[in-house]
Amino acid sequence: MRISIIGGTGNQGKGLALRLGKAGYQILLGSRSKERAEDIANELKEKNPDIIIEGLGNIEAANKGDLIILTIPYTSIDKTVLELREAVKGKVVVDTSVALVPGKPPSTKRVPEGSVAQKINNIIGDEAKVVSAFHTISAHLLQELNKEISGDTLIAGDDQEAKEIVSIMAEKIGLRPLDAGPLRVSSILEELTSLLIGMNIRFKKKSIGVTFTNI
Amino acid sequence: MRISIIGGTGNQGKGLALRLGKAGYQILLGSRSKERAEDIANELKEKNPDIIIEGLGNIEAANKGDLIILTIPYTSIDKTVLELREAVKGKVVVDTSVALVPGKPPSTKRVPEGSVAQKINNIIGDEAKVVSAFHTISAHLLQELNKEISGDTLIAGDDQEAKEIVSIMAEKIGLRPLDAGPLRVSSILEELTSLLIGMNIRFKKKSIGVTFTNI
Repeated sequence: MRISIIGGTGNQGKGLALRLGKAGYQILLGSRSKERAEDIANELKEKNPDIIIEGLGNIEAANKGDLIILTIPYTSIDKTVLELREAVKGKVVVDTSVALVPGKPPSTKRVPEGSVAQKINNIIGDEAKVVSAFHTISAHLLQELNKEISGDTLIAGDDQEAKEIVSIMAEKIGLRPLDAGPLRVSSILEELTSLLIGMNIRFKKKSIGVTFTNI
Repeated sequence: MRISIIGGTGNQGKGLALRLGKAGYQILLGSRSKERAEDIANELKEKNPDIIIEGLGNIEAANKGDLIILTIPYTSIDKTVLELREAVKGKVVVDTSVALVPGKPPSTKRVPEGSVAQKINNIIGDEAKVVSAFHTISAHLLQELNKEISGDTLIAGDDQEAKEIVSIMAEKIGLRPLDAGPLRVSSILEELTSLLIGMNIRFKKKSIGVTFTNI
C-alpha cells in the first residue's frame, strides 16, 4: 500500500513516514515545494536505506497514494485540502491536524465545523472517507526509531471499514488502536494533542502519550 | 479533614464518599434534600461501618467542611453554587462536573466561560480556590470497593497549593494525580469524561480510565 503524507516535511510527517516506512508501507512524502519534499525524502532514506520513500508535490503525492495522511498546519487546510479534492476521491484520508493556539499550555481554537476533521470532511465531501487519528502519539517519539512506541491511538470516523484500515496501520507501528466513535468525536482527540503538548512542557518531557485502562 | 460532597447522592458523589471515607477523611454528604442526604449517608454507613459520614443539606454541608467537592448536574450549577458562595470562602472547591449532552456517544455543551470549572470560579469569585479533578475516574469503579483503583487523574487549577491538597486526596484513593495546568485546561478534562462515557458504551465496559505514558 502506498501512503501519501501531505505536508509531510514537518516533525509529525517525518515521524509517520519513518515508522510507516519501517513497517513496510511505501511512502510518498508531499510538500507544497516538491524540492523540499525530495530533500527530506532523501535525508530520511540516507539514514534508513530500507524504507521506500519518494518526495513529491502535495497533489502528485495525493494522486499516486492509496491512502492519504494529512499533517498540515490548520491555517493551510482550506487551501491545501481544496486542491486535493479530486486526488483523494474514493480514498481513505487520515487527518492528524489540530487547530492549535500556542501558549503555556497551548489550547485549541474553536472550529465552526466542530473539529478540524469535520472541517476537512466538509471540504472533501463524501467521496473520500475521513478518519481522525494519531493525535496522541508524540512526533518526537515517532522519529526516535531506537525507542519502542507504546500507548493508544484513538480513531474517530464515520466509516467503519476506513477505521479498520487505519487501525491496522496503527498496530503495525506499535500503537493500540481504539475506536473512539464517529468523526464528531475528533474534537476531543484534537484537544488531547494540546493537553499532551502542555503536559510535555510542564513535566519537561517530549513523548507523553495516553493509554486507556480497564478496556 | 472534613470533606463536603455537594450533590453527593448521585453515583459520582457516593463513589467519592466511599473511597475518601475509606481513606480516613470525614465525609459530609450534601443534597438539596437533607432527608435524602441522610438516607444515602445511612445506607453507605451500614455497608461500611468504618467510614465517618453524615447527611446534610448542601449549604450546611459546605459550611461544616474544610474542603468542598461539587458533584452536581450542570443544569443546577448556577443556583447551587451561588447559594454556597459564603460557605466556601477561603476553602478549596473541587469541581468534577461536566456539561454533558446525552447521545451515543455523548458530547459536551459549549460553556461560555470556557469550561464548567471556570464558570464555577466566576460565580464563587476569588475567595475560594477552584480545582478541577476526578474527571476520568469511573463512578462505577469508585463504588466497587473490592476493585483496586488504577489510572491517573488530571488536576487543573490556578492555585498550586490547592492543587497539591487535591493531589494528596487523589493519591489516598489510589489515583496518580497529574498537574494538567491552569484552570482553563479543565475544558479538556471535562471532554475526557464524555469521551470515556462514549467508550464505555462502545466497548461495553463500565470503568475505562486513562493513564499517561512516558511521563
